[in-house]
Amino acid sequence: MPSNKLFNTVALIGIGLIGSSLARAMKQQGLAGKIVCADTNANHRARALELGLVEAAYASPAEAVKEADIVILCVPIGVCGEVTQQLAPALRPGCIVTDTGSVKQTTIRDMAPHIPAGVHFIPGHPIAGTENSGPDAGFAELFTGRWSILTPLPDTDANALSRLKEMWERMGSKVELMDAAHHDRVLAITSHLPHLIAYTIVDTAMTLEGDLQAEVIKYSAGGFRDFTRLAASDPTMWRDIFIANREAVLDIAQRLTEDLTELQKAIRRGEGDKLFEVFTRTRAIRRGVISAKQE
Amino acid sequence: MPSNKLFNTVALIGIGLIGSSLARAMKQQGLAGKIVCADTNANHRARALELGLVEAAYASPAEAVKEADIVILCVPIGVCGEVTQQLAPALRPGCIVTDTGSVKQTTIRDMAPHIPAGVHFIPGHPIAGTENSGPDAGFAELFTGRWSILTPLPDTDANALSRLKEMWERMGSKVELMDAAHHDRVLAITSHLPHLIAYTIVDTAMTLEGDLQAEVIKYSAGGFRDFTRLAASDPTMWRDIFIANREAVLDIAQRLTEDLTELQKAIRRGEGDKLFEVFTRTRAIRRGVISAKQE
Repeated sequence: MPSNKLFNTVALIGIGLIGSSLARAMKQQGLAGKIVCADTNANHRARALELGLVEAAYASPAEAVKEADIVILCVPIGVCGEVTQQLAPALRPGCIVTDTGSVKQTTIRDMAPHIPAGVHFIPGHPIAGTENSGPDAGFAELFTGRWSILTPLPDTDANALSRLKEMWERMGSKVELMDAAHHDRVLAITSHLPHLIAYTIVDTAMTLEGDLQAEVIKYSAGGFRDFTRLAASDPTMWRDIFIANREAVLDIAQRLTEDLTELQKAIRRGEGDKLFEVFTRTRAIRRGVISAKQE
Repeated sequence: MPSNKLFNTVALIGIGLIGSSLARAMKQQGLAGKIVCADTNANHRARALELGLVEAAYASPAEAVKEADIVILCVPIGVCGEVTQQLAPALRPGCIVTDTGSVKQTTIRDMAPHIPAGVHFIPGHPIAGTENSGPDAGFAELFTGRWSILTPLPDTDANALSRLKEMWERMGSKVELMDAAHHDRVLAITSHLPHLIAYTIVDTAMTLEGDLQAEVIKYSAGGFRDFTRLAASDPTMWRDIFIANREAVLDIAQRLTEDLTELQKAIRRGEGDKLFEVFTRTRAIRRGVISAKQE
Protein backbone atom coordinates (compact mmCIF):
# COMPACT_ATOMS: atom_id res chain seq x y z
CA MET A 1 0.00 0.00 0.00
CA PRO A 2 2.39 2.74 -1.14
CA SER A 3 -0.32 5.41 -0.86
CA ASN A 4 -0.45 4.78 2.87
CA LYS A 5 3.30 4.88 3.32
CA LEU A 6 4.28 7.33 6.05
CA PHE A 7 8.08 7.13 5.73
CA ASN A 8 10.45 6.13 2.94
CA THR A 9 13.11 4.70 5.25
CA VAL A 10 12.77 3.82 8.91
CA ALA A 11 15.91 3.14 10.96
CA LEU A 12 15.41 1.10 14.13
CA ILE A 13 18.35 1.38 16.50
CA GLY A 14 18.20 -1.84 18.51
CA ILE A 15 16.17 -4.80 17.21
CA GLY A 16 15.09 -6.43 20.48
CA LEU A 17 11.54 -6.82 21.78
CA ILE A 18 10.48 -3.23 21.01
CA GLY A 19 12.46 -2.71 17.78
CA SER A 20 11.34 -5.99 16.26
CA SER A 21 7.72 -5.39 17.28
CA LEU A 22 7.89 -2.00 15.55
CA ALA A 23 9.31 -3.63 12.40
CA ARG A 24 6.52 -6.20 12.37
CA ALA A 25 3.74 -3.66 13.04
CA MET A 26 5.08 -1.22 10.43
CA LYS A 27 5.27 -3.92 7.79
CA GLN A 28 1.78 -5.09 8.62
CA GLN A 29 0.45 -1.52 8.29
CA GLY A 30 2.56 -0.63 5.24
CA LEU A 31 4.01 2.37 7.09
CA ALA A 32 7.51 2.26 5.60
CA GLY A 33 9.07 1.92 2.16
CA LYS A 34 12.09 0.33 3.75
CA ILE A 35 13.11 -0.67 7.28
CA VAL A 36 16.73 -0.98 8.35
CA CYS A 37 18.26 -1.55 11.76
CA ALA A 38 21.42 -1.25 13.77
CA ASP A 39 22.31 -3.55 16.64
CA THR A 40 25.58 -4.20 18.44
CA ASN A 41 24.59 -7.87 18.81
CA ALA A 42 25.57 -9.80 15.63
CA ASN A 43 23.11 -12.60 16.44
CA HIS A 44 20.26 -10.11 16.63
CA ARG A 45 21.26 -8.61 13.27
CA ALA A 46 21.39 -12.03 11.62
CA ARG A 47 18.06 -13.04 13.17
CA ALA A 48 16.36 -9.78 12.09
CA LEU A 49 17.39 -10.49 8.49
CA GLU A 50 16.38 -14.16 8.68
CA LEU A 51 12.96 -13.20 10.03
CA GLY A 52 12.57 -10.68 7.20
CA LEU A 53 12.05 -7.84 9.69
CA VAL A 54 14.50 -5.46 8.00
CA GLU A 55 16.03 -4.91 4.58
CA ALA A 56 19.48 -4.25 6.07
CA ALA A 57 21.14 -4.62 9.47
CA TYR A 58 24.21 -2.67 10.52
CA ALA A 59 26.59 -2.79 13.45
CA SER A 60 27.00 0.99 13.20
CA PRO A 61 24.06 3.27 14.06
CA ALA A 62 25.51 5.94 11.73
CA GLU A 63 25.37 3.55 8.77
CA ALA A 64 21.77 2.69 9.53
CA VAL A 65 20.43 6.26 9.67
CA LYS A 66 21.96 7.68 6.50
CA GLU A 67 18.81 7.44 4.36
CA ALA A 68 16.27 7.51 7.21
CA ASP A 69 13.25 9.84 7.47
CA ILE A 70 12.76 8.59 10.99
CA VAL A 71 15.14 7.07 13.52
CA ILE A 72 13.68 5.19 16.50
CA LEU A 73 15.98 4.33 19.38
CA CYS A 74 14.99 1.02 20.97
CA VAL A 75 18.03 0.56 23.20
CA PRO A 76 18.47 0.59 27.00
CA ILE A 77 18.25 4.21 28.16
CA GLY A 78 21.75 4.13 29.61
CA VAL A 79 23.23 4.15 26.09
CA CYS A 80 20.80 6.57 24.38
CA GLY A 81 23.20 9.52 24.69
CA GLU A 82 26.20 7.65 23.34
CA VAL A 83 24.23 6.12 20.46
CA THR A 84 22.79 9.52 19.51
CA GLN A 85 26.28 10.99 19.50
CA GLN A 86 27.42 8.23 17.13
CA LEU A 87 24.58 8.56 14.65
CA ALA A 88 24.06 12.35 14.78
CA PRO A 89 26.57 13.30 12.04
CA ALA A 90 24.83 10.96 9.56
CA LEU A 91 21.28 12.29 10.14
CA ARG A 92 19.52 13.88 7.14
CA PRO A 93 17.94 17.32 7.56
CA GLY A 94 14.20 17.01 8.27
CA CYS A 95 14.64 13.59 9.84
CA ILE A 96 12.64 12.71 12.97
CA VAL A 97 14.54 11.19 15.89
CA THR A 98 12.49 9.55 18.61
CA ASP A 99 13.05 6.95 21.30
CA THR A 100 11.10 4.42 23.35
CA GLY A 101 12.79 4.79 26.73
CA SER A 102 10.94 4.43 30.01
CA VAL A 103 12.47 7.57 31.57
CA LYS A 104 12.20 10.84 29.66
CA GLN A 105 14.06 13.58 31.53
CA THR A 106 17.43 11.82 31.42
CA THR A 107 17.06 10.64 27.82
CA ILE A 108 16.28 14.21 26.78
CA ARG A 109 19.30 15.42 28.78
CA ASP A 110 21.50 12.77 27.15
CA MET A 111 20.19 12.92 23.58
CA ALA A 112 19.17 16.54 22.88
CA PRO A 113 22.68 18.07 22.90
CA HIS A 114 23.73 15.80 20.01
CA ILE A 115 20.76 16.48 17.71
CA PRO A 116 21.84 18.67 14.74
CA ALA A 117 19.84 21.74 13.69
CA GLY A 118 17.11 20.82 11.19
CA VAL A 119 16.49 17.41 12.76
CA HIS A 120 13.27 16.92 14.79
CA PHE A 121 13.82 15.29 18.16
CA ILE A 122 10.57 14.07 19.77
CA PRO A 123 11.02 11.83 22.84
CA GLY A 124 8.53 9.00 23.16
CA HIS A 125 7.58 5.98 25.22
CA PRO A 126 5.11 3.20 24.33
CA ILE A 127 3.54 1.71 27.50
CA ALA A 128 3.82 -1.84 26.25
CA GLY A 129 6.18 -4.72 26.68
CA THR A 130 6.62 -8.27 27.85
CA GLU A 131 9.23 -10.00 29.98
CA ASN A 132 10.89 -11.45 26.88
CA SER A 133 13.86 -10.00 24.97
CA GLY A 134 15.41 -10.19 21.52
CA PRO A 135 14.16 -10.06 17.90
CA ASP A 136 12.21 -13.32 18.25
CA ALA A 137 10.20 -11.95 21.19
CA GLY A 138 8.51 -9.16 19.23
CA PHE A 139 5.03 -9.27 17.70
CA ALA A 140 3.00 -6.89 15.54
CA GLU A 141 0.17 -6.43 18.06
CA LEU A 142 2.36 -5.35 21.00
CA PHE A 143 1.21 -1.72 20.77
CA THR A 144 -2.44 -2.35 19.92
CA GLY A 145 -4.77 -0.73 22.44
CA ARG A 146 -1.81 0.54 24.50
CA TRP A 147 -0.88 4.14 25.21
CA SER A 148 2.12 5.76 23.59
CA ILE A 149 3.34 8.85 25.42
CA LEU A 150 5.19 11.61 23.57
CA THR A 151 6.99 14.34 25.53
CA PRO A 152 7.71 16.99 22.88
CA LEU A 153 10.08 19.85 23.67
CA PRO A 154 8.79 23.46 23.53
CA ASP A 155 10.07 24.14 19.99
CA THR A 156 8.82 20.88 18.43
CA ASP A 157 7.79 21.07 14.76
CA ALA A 158 4.00 20.53 14.53
CA ASN A 159 4.20 18.60 11.27
CA ALA A 160 6.86 16.20 12.54
CA LEU A 161 4.84 15.65 15.72
CA SER A 162 1.72 14.93 13.73
CA ARG A 163 3.52 12.33 11.58
CA LEU A 164 4.95 10.61 14.64
CA LYS A 165 1.52 10.59 16.25
CA GLU A 166 0.06 9.06 13.09
CA MET A 167 2.75 6.37 13.11
CA TRP A 168 1.74 5.19 16.60
CA GLU A 169 -1.96 5.45 15.88
CA ARG A 170 -1.68 3.36 12.74
CA MET A 171 -0.01 0.64 14.81
CA GLY A 172 -3.09 0.67 17.07
CA SER A 173 -1.78 2.88 19.88
CA LYS A 174 -3.52 5.73 21.62
CA VAL A 175 -1.24 8.77 21.87
CA GLU A 176 -0.92 11.14 24.82
CA LEU A 177 1.27 14.24 25.03
CA MET A 178 2.89 14.90 28.38
CA ASP A 179 5.55 16.89 30.14
CA ALA A 180 8.73 14.81 30.63
CA ALA A 181 8.90 15.35 34.40
CA HIS A 182 5.26 14.34 34.81
CA HIS A 183 5.86 11.26 32.63
CA ASP A 184 8.71 10.16 34.88
CA ARG A 185 6.61 10.53 37.99
CA VAL A 186 3.64 8.63 36.53
CA LEU A 187 5.86 5.83 35.25
CA ALA A 188 7.65 5.54 38.59
CA ILE A 189 4.29 4.52 40.04
CA THR A 190 2.72 2.50 37.22
CA SER A 191 5.79 0.66 36.02
CA HIS A 192 9.07 1.24 37.87
CA LEU A 193 7.81 0.58 41.41
CA PRO A 194 5.91 -2.58 40.38
CA HIS A 195 9.08 -3.92 38.76
CA LEU A 196 11.20 -3.00 41.78
CA ILE A 197 8.79 -4.81 44.09
CA ALA A 198 8.60 -7.84 41.81
CA TYR A 199 12.40 -8.06 41.63
CA THR A 200 12.56 -7.74 45.42
CA ILE A 201 9.98 -10.38 46.27
CA VAL A 202 11.47 -12.88 43.83
CA ASP A 203 14.93 -12.17 45.21
CA THR A 204 13.65 -12.62 48.76
CA ALA A 205 12.27 -16.02 47.76
CA MET A 206 15.58 -16.97 46.12
CA THR A 207 17.55 -16.33 49.28
CA LEU A 208 15.41 -18.78 51.29
CA GLU A 209 16.80 -22.12 52.35
CA GLY A 210 17.10 -24.66 49.48
CA ASP A 211 13.98 -26.75 50.13
CA LEU A 212 11.73 -23.74 50.48
CA GLN A 213 13.05 -22.30 47.19
CA ALA A 214 11.82 -25.34 45.27
CA GLU A 215 8.45 -25.16 47.01
CA VAL A 216 8.05 -21.48 46.13
CA ILE A 217 8.09 -22.44 42.46
CA LYS A 218 5.93 -25.52 42.96
CA TYR A 219 3.15 -23.60 44.73
CA SER A 220 3.57 -20.32 42.86
CA ALA A 221 -0.03 -20.41 41.58
CA GLY A 222 -1.04 -19.00 44.98
CA GLY A 223 0.06 -15.53 43.86
CA PHE A 224 3.86 -15.54 43.63
CA ARG A 225 3.84 -16.41 39.91
CA ASP A 226 2.24 -13.02 39.13
CA PHE A 227 5.49 -11.39 40.25
CA THR A 228 7.86 -13.71 38.42
CA ARG A 229 6.78 -12.33 35.03
CA LEU A 230 7.87 -8.77 35.84
CA ALA A 231 11.00 -10.03 37.61
CA ALA A 232 12.06 -11.79 34.40
CA SER A 233 12.34 -8.49 32.51
CA ASP A 234 15.60 -7.44 30.84
CA PRO A 235 18.24 -6.71 33.55
CA THR A 236 20.18 -4.06 31.57
CA MET A 237 17.06 -2.14 30.64
CA TRP A 238 15.83 -2.10 34.21
CA ARG A 239 19.18 -1.28 35.81
CA ASP A 240 19.26 1.82 33.59
CA ILE A 241 15.67 2.79 34.37
CA PHE A 242 16.08 2.71 38.15
CA ILE A 243 19.27 4.74 38.05
CA ALA A 244 17.85 7.28 35.57
CA ASN A 245 14.59 7.78 37.47
CA ARG A 246 16.02 7.34 40.94
CA GLU A 247 14.40 10.33 42.61
CA ALA A 248 10.84 9.53 41.56
CA VAL A 249 11.35 5.80 42.20
CA LEU A 250 12.82 6.31 45.68
CA ASP A 251 10.05 8.75 46.55
CA ILE A 252 7.27 6.33 45.68
CA ALA A 253 9.15 3.37 47.18
CA GLN A 254 9.29 5.32 50.43
CA ARG A 255 5.52 5.83 50.36
CA LEU A 256 5.04 2.12 49.74
CA THR A 257 7.29 1.22 52.65
CA GLU A 258 5.25 3.45 54.94
CA ASP A 259 1.99 1.87 53.77
CA LEU A 260 3.45 -1.63 54.18
CA THR A 261 4.56 -0.78 57.72
CA GLU A 262 0.99 0.31 58.50
CA LEU A 263 -0.43 -2.98 57.23
CA GLN A 264 2.21 -5.00 59.09
CA LYS A 265 1.25 -3.16 62.26
CA ALA A 266 -2.46 -3.90 61.66
CA ILE A 267 -1.66 -7.59 61.15
CA ARG A 268 0.50 -7.72 64.29
CA ARG A 269 -2.27 -6.11 66.33
CA GLY A 270 -4.99 -8.26 64.74
CA GLU A 271 -6.87 -5.18 63.49
CA GLY A 272 -9.19 -7.00 61.11
CA ASP A 273 -11.42 -3.98 60.46
CA LYS A 274 -8.51 -1.93 59.21
CA LEU A 275 -7.34 -4.70 56.86
CA PHE A 276 -10.88 -5.23 55.58
CA GLU A 277 -11.23 -1.52 54.83
CA VAL A 278 -8.00 -1.39 52.80
CA PHE A 279 -8.74 -4.61 50.90
CA THR A 280 -12.22 -3.39 50.00
CA ARG A 281 -10.81 -0.10 48.69
CA THR A 282 -8.17 -1.78 46.53
CA ARG A 283 -10.72 -4.09 44.94
CA ALA A 284 -12.27 -1.10 43.14
CA ILE A 285 -9.11 -0.30 41.20
CA ARG A 286 -9.22 -3.62 39.35
CA ARG A 287 -12.61 -2.63 37.92
CA GLY A 288 -10.97 0.60 36.71
CA VAL A 289 -8.19 -1.30 34.95
CA ILE A 290 -10.68 -3.64 33.30
CA SER A 291 -12.99 -0.85 32.15
CA ALA A 292 -9.97 1.08 30.79
CA LYS A 293 -9.19 -2.08 28.75
CA GLN A 294 -5.63 -2.26 30.10
CA GLU A 295 -6.00 -5.68 31.77
CA MET B 1 -21.20 -42.82 35.56
CA PRO B 2 -22.43 -44.36 38.87
CA SER B 3 -19.59 -46.90 38.87
CA ASN B 4 -17.11 -44.04 39.25
CA LYS B 5 -19.03 -42.36 42.02
CA LEU B 6 -16.78 -41.67 45.01
CA PHE B 7 -19.38 -40.29 47.43
CA ASN B 8 -23.13 -40.64 47.76
CA THR B 9 -23.70 -37.17 49.16
CA VAL B 10 -21.26 -34.25 49.18
CA ALA B 11 -21.98 -31.20 51.36
CA LEU B 12 -20.24 -27.98 50.36
CA ILE B 13 -20.28 -25.41 53.15
CA GLY B 14 -20.00 -22.10 51.30
CA ILE B 15 -20.84 -21.92 47.58
CA GLY B 16 -18.51 -19.10 46.45
CA LEU B 17 -15.59 -19.36 44.01
CA ILE B 18 -14.12 -22.53 45.56
CA GLY B 19 -17.36 -24.26 46.54
CA SER B 20 -19.00 -23.66 43.18
CA SER B 21 -15.87 -24.77 41.30
CA LEU B 22 -15.88 -27.99 43.34
CA ALA B 23 -19.56 -28.55 42.50
CA ARG B 24 -18.87 -28.06 38.79
CA ALA B 25 -15.75 -30.27 38.74
CA MET B 26 -17.46 -33.02 40.75
CA LYS B 27 -20.46 -33.05 38.43
CA GLN B 28 -18.20 -33.14 35.40
CA GLN B 29 -16.26 -36.09 36.83
CA GLY B 30 -19.31 -37.89 38.20
CA LEU B 31 -17.78 -37.95 41.68
CA ALA B 32 -20.97 -37.54 43.69
CA GLY B 33 -24.43 -39.06 43.74
CA LYS B 34 -25.80 -35.82 45.13
CA ILE B 35 -24.32 -32.42 45.98
CA VAL B 36 -25.88 -30.09 48.52
CA CYS B 37 -24.63 -26.83 49.97
CA ALA B 38 -25.02 -24.44 52.84
CA ASP B 39 -24.45 -20.71 52.56
CA THR B 40 -25.44 -17.81 54.80
CA ASN B 41 -25.99 -15.65 51.70
CA ALA B 42 -29.52 -16.22 50.34
CA ASN B 43 -28.54 -14.88 46.91
CA HIS B 44 -25.73 -17.41 46.67
CA ARG B 45 -28.10 -20.22 47.61
CA ALA B 46 -30.64 -19.15 44.99
CA ARG B 47 -27.95 -18.77 42.35
CA ALA B 48 -26.41 -22.18 43.12
CA LEU B 49 -29.83 -23.78 42.55
CA GLU B 50 -30.48 -21.76 39.37
CA LEU B 51 -27.09 -22.78 37.96
CA GLY B 52 -27.86 -26.41 38.76
CA LEU B 53 -24.73 -26.71 40.89
CA VAL B 54 -26.49 -28.38 43.82
CA GLU B 55 -29.60 -30.46 44.49
CA ALA B 56 -30.39 -28.54 47.67
CA ALA B 57 -29.16 -25.35 49.34
CA TYR B 58 -29.55 -24.67 53.06
CA ALA B 59 -28.99 -21.68 55.31
CA SER B 60 -27.97 -24.05 58.11
CA PRO B 61 -24.72 -26.06 57.82
CA ALA B 62 -26.19 -28.72 60.11
CA GLU B 63 -29.11 -29.28 57.70
CA ALA B 64 -26.70 -29.63 54.78
CA VAL B 65 -24.45 -32.29 56.32
CA LYS B 66 -27.07 -34.70 57.62
CA GLU B 67 -26.72 -37.23 54.78
CA ALA B 68 -23.18 -36.35 53.72
CA ASP B 69 -20.28 -38.82 53.26
CA ILE B 70 -17.99 -35.83 52.90
CA VAL B 71 -18.25 -32.23 54.10
CA ILE B 72 -16.00 -29.62 52.50
CA LEU B 73 -15.70 -26.23 54.19
CA CYS B 74 -15.26 -23.47 51.59
CA VAL B 75 -15.73 -20.49 53.89
CA PRO B 76 -13.33 -17.76 55.10
CA ILE B 77 -11.00 -19.33 57.67
CA GLY B 78 -12.13 -16.93 60.38
CA VAL B 79 -15.49 -18.75 60.62
CA CYS B 80 -14.29 -22.36 60.19
CA GLY B 81 -14.39 -23.05 63.93
CA GLU B 82 -17.88 -21.65 64.43
CA VAL B 83 -19.27 -23.41 61.36
CA THR B 84 -17.76 -26.73 62.46
CA GLN B 85 -19.32 -26.31 65.87
CA GLN B 86 -22.71 -25.74 64.22
CA LEU B 87 -22.59 -28.74 61.92
CA ALA B 88 -20.76 -31.22 64.17
CA PRO B 89 -23.83 -32.68 65.94
CA ALA B 90 -25.38 -33.59 62.56
CA LEU B 91 -22.34 -35.43 61.13
CA ARG B 92 -22.75 -39.11 60.31
CA PRO B 93 -20.20 -41.62 61.64
CA GLY B 94 -17.53 -42.37 59.02
CA CYS B 95 -18.03 -39.00 57.35
CA ILE B 96 -14.94 -37.11 56.07
CA VAL B 97 -14.66 -33.43 57.04
CA THR B 98 -12.12 -31.36 55.11
CA ASP B 99 -11.59 -27.69 54.37
CA THR B 100 -9.95 -25.48 51.75
CA GLY B 101 -8.46 -22.75 53.95
CA SER B 102 -5.19 -21.03 53.18
CA VAL B 103 -3.84 -21.34 56.76
CA LYS B 104 -3.76 -24.78 58.36
CA GLN B 105 -2.53 -24.49 61.94
CA THR B 106 -5.32 -22.17 63.06
CA THR B 107 -8.07 -24.03 61.16
CA ILE B 108 -6.94 -27.25 62.81
CA ARG B 109 -6.92 -25.48 66.18
CA ASP B 110 -10.42 -24.08 65.53
CA MET B 111 -12.05 -27.13 63.89
CA ALA B 112 -10.52 -30.24 65.49
CA PRO B 113 -12.07 -29.83 68.98
CA HIS B 114 -15.58 -29.96 67.48
CA ILE B 115 -15.14 -33.10 65.36
CA PRO B 116 -17.01 -36.07 66.92
CA ALA B 117 -15.38 -39.47 67.38
CA GLY B 118 -15.80 -41.64 64.28
CA VAL B 119 -15.64 -38.68 61.88
CA HIS B 120 -12.45 -38.27 59.78
CA PHE B 121 -11.07 -34.73 59.83
CA ILE B 122 -8.42 -34.14 57.14
CA PRO B 123 -7.42 -30.49 56.63
CA GLY B 124 -6.76 -29.46 53.03
CA HIS B 125 -5.91 -26.53 50.78
CA PRO B 126 -6.09 -26.37 46.97
CA ILE B 127 -3.49 -23.89 45.61
CA ALA B 128 -5.88 -22.42 43.10
CA GLY B 129 -8.10 -19.39 42.89
CA THR B 130 -8.94 -16.23 41.03
CA GLU B 131 -9.71 -12.70 42.18
CA ASN B 132 -13.43 -13.26 41.62
CA SER B 133 -15.98 -14.31 44.22
CA GLY B 134 -19.40 -15.93 44.37
CA PRO B 135 -21.12 -18.92 42.74
CA ASP B 136 -20.94 -17.42 39.25
CA ALA B 137 -17.14 -17.05 39.46
CA GLY B 138 -16.41 -20.78 39.72
CA PHE B 139 -15.42 -23.10 36.88
CA ALA B 140 -14.78 -26.83 36.62
CA GLU B 141 -11.14 -26.50 35.53
CA LEU B 142 -10.01 -24.34 38.47
CA PHE B 143 -8.09 -27.21 40.08
CA THR B 144 -6.71 -28.81 36.92
CA GLY B 145 -2.90 -29.00 37.00
CA ARG B 146 -2.79 -27.27 40.40
CA TRP B 147 -1.48 -28.68 43.66
CA SER B 148 -3.81 -29.62 46.47
CA ILE B 149 -2.11 -29.85 49.84
CA LEU B 150 -3.45 -32.10 52.58
CA THR B 151 -2.14 -31.78 56.14
CA PRO B 152 -3.41 -34.97 57.85
CA LEU B 153 -3.20 -35.30 61.63
CA PRO B 154 -1.15 -38.14 63.16
CA ASP B 155 -4.15 -40.45 63.68
CA THR B 156 -5.72 -40.00 60.24
CA ASP B 157 -7.55 -42.99 58.80
CA ALA B 158 -5.63 -44.26 55.75
CA ASN B 159 -8.76 -45.21 53.83
CA ALA B 160 -10.40 -41.80 54.33
CA LEU B 161 -7.16 -40.07 53.27
CA SER B 162 -6.95 -42.21 50.16
CA ARG B 163 -10.54 -41.33 49.16
CA LEU B 164 -9.92 -37.62 49.68
CA LYS B 165 -6.72 -37.84 47.64
CA GLU B 166 -8.62 -39.60 44.85
CA MET B 167 -11.27 -36.85 44.89
CA TRP B 168 -8.68 -34.17 44.18
CA GLU B 169 -6.83 -36.25 41.63
CA ARG B 170 -9.99 -36.96 39.68
CA MET B 171 -10.60 -33.20 39.46
CA GLY B 172 -7.14 -32.86 37.86
CA SER B 173 -5.14 -31.83 40.94
CA LYS B 174 -1.79 -33.11 42.07
CA VAL B 175 -1.84 -33.95 45.80
CA GLU B 176 0.93 -33.31 48.31
CA LEU B 177 0.94 -34.27 51.99
CA MET B 178 2.56 -31.79 54.33
CA ASP B 179 2.93 -30.81 57.96
CA ALA B 180 0.57 -27.95 58.86
CA ALA B 181 3.29 -25.66 60.20
CA HIS B 182 5.38 -26.14 57.08
CA HIS B 183 2.32 -25.47 54.91
CA ASP B 184 1.73 -22.17 56.66
CA ARG B 185 5.32 -21.09 56.16
CA VAL B 186 5.37 -22.03 52.46
CA LEU B 187 2.05 -20.31 51.82
CA ALA B 188 3.20 -17.18 53.65
CA ILE B 189 5.85 -16.83 50.95
CA THR B 190 4.07 -18.09 47.83
CA SER B 191 0.67 -16.58 48.44
CA HIS B 192 0.18 -14.43 51.53
CA LEU B 193 3.16 -12.10 51.04
CA PRO B 194 2.38 -11.55 47.32
CA HIS B 195 -1.18 -10.60 48.24
CA LEU B 196 -0.01 -8.31 51.05
CA ILE B 197 2.36 -6.54 48.68
CA ALA B 198 -0.26 -6.27 45.95
CA TYR B 199 -2.78 -4.79 48.40
CA THR B 200 -0.12 -2.35 49.60
CA ILE B 201 1.03 -1.11 46.20
CA VAL B 202 -2.54 -0.63 44.98
CA ASP B 203 -3.41 1.19 48.19
CA THR B 204 -0.32 3.41 47.82
CA ALA B 205 -1.49 4.31 44.31
CA MET B 206 -4.99 5.06 45.59
CA THR B 207 -3.76 7.57 48.13
CA LEU B 208 -2.02 9.65 45.45
CA GLU B 209 -3.40 12.99 44.41
CA GLY B 210 -6.54 12.74 42.23
CA ASP B 211 -5.00 13.29 38.77
CA LEU B 212 -2.24 10.77 39.34
CA GLN B 213 -4.77 8.17 40.47
CA ALA B 214 -6.54 8.28 37.10
CA GLU B 215 -3.22 8.03 35.27
CA VAL B 216 -2.17 5.00 37.29
CA ILE B 217 -5.11 3.11 35.83
CA LYS B 218 -4.63 4.55 32.34
CA TYR B 219 -0.99 3.48 32.12
CA SER B 220 -1.29 0.33 34.20
CA ALA B 221 -0.03 -1.87 31.34
CA GLY B 222 3.49 -0.81 32.39
CA GLY B 223 3.38 -3.33 35.25
CA PHE B 224 0.91 -2.03 37.83
CA ARG B 225 -2.00 -4.00 36.38
CA ASP B 226 -0.27 -7.28 37.38
CA PHE B 227 -0.83 -6.29 41.01
CA THR B 228 -4.43 -5.18 40.66
CA ARG B 229 -5.61 -8.74 40.05
CA LEU B 230 -4.34 -10.00 43.42
CA ALA B 231 -5.48 -6.82 45.16
CA ALA B 232 -9.04 -7.49 43.94
CA SER B 233 -9.26 -10.73 45.95
CA ASP B 234 -11.98 -11.27 48.54
CA PRO B 235 -11.43 -8.87 51.50
CA THR B 236 -12.98 -11.11 54.18
CA MET B 237 -10.99 -14.14 53.11
CA TRP B 238 -7.73 -12.22 53.12
CA ARG B 239 -8.35 -10.38 56.37
CA ASP B 240 -8.77 -13.78 58.03
CA ILE B 241 -5.66 -15.24 56.37
CA PHE B 242 -3.31 -12.46 57.48
CA ILE B 243 -4.55 -12.57 61.05
CA ALA B 244 -4.45 -16.39 61.23
CA ASN B 245 -0.96 -16.67 59.74
CA ARG B 246 0.43 -13.47 61.22
CA GLU B 247 3.71 -14.85 62.51
CA ALA B 248 4.86 -16.42 59.25
CA VAL B 249 3.57 -13.45 57.23
CA LEU B 250 5.28 -10.85 59.40
CA ASP B 251 8.52 -12.85 59.34
CA ILE B 252 8.66 -13.00 55.53
CA ALA B 253 7.43 -9.40 55.20
CA GLN B 254 10.37 -8.37 57.37
CA ARG B 255 12.81 -10.17 55.07
CA LEU B 256 11.23 -8.46 52.08
CA THR B 257 11.54 -5.06 53.72
CA GLU B 258 15.24 -5.68 54.34
CA ASP B 259 15.80 -6.74 50.72
CA LEU B 260 13.84 -3.72 49.46
CA THR B 261 15.95 -1.42 51.63
CA GLU B 262 19.09 -2.92 50.06
CA LEU B 263 17.79 -2.29 46.54
CA GLN B 264 16.72 1.25 47.44
CA LYS B 265 20.22 1.90 48.75
CA ALA B 266 21.76 0.52 45.53
CA ILE B 267 19.50 2.80 43.46
CA ARG B 268 20.32 5.84 45.60
CA ARG B 269 24.05 5.18 45.24
CA GLY B 270 23.78 4.40 41.52
CA GLU B 271 25.22 0.89 42.02
CA GLY B 272 24.29 -0.48 38.60
CA ASP B 273 26.34 -3.68 38.95
CA LYS B 274 24.50 -4.69 42.08
CA LEU B 275 21.09 -4.11 40.46
CA PHE B 276 22.14 -6.01 37.35
CA GLU B 277 23.26 -8.96 39.45
CA VAL B 278 19.94 -9.19 41.32
CA PHE B 279 17.83 -8.75 38.17
CA THR B 280 19.78 -11.47 36.37
CA ARG B 281 19.28 -13.87 39.27
CA THR B 282 15.52 -13.27 39.49
CA ARG B 283 15.06 -13.91 35.77
CA ALA B 284 15.90 -17.59 36.30
CA ILE B 285 12.95 -18.20 38.60
CA ARG B 286 10.46 -17.42 35.82
CA ARG B 287 11.88 -20.31 33.82
CA GLY B 288 11.31 -22.52 36.88
CA VAL B 289 7.67 -21.45 37.11
CA ILE B 290 7.12 -22.07 33.40
CA SER B 291 8.79 -25.49 33.42
CA ALA B 292 6.75 -26.43 36.52
CA LYS B 293 3.64 -25.55 34.44
CA GLN B 294 2.36 -23.15 37.12
CA GLU B 295 2.42 -20.03 34.91
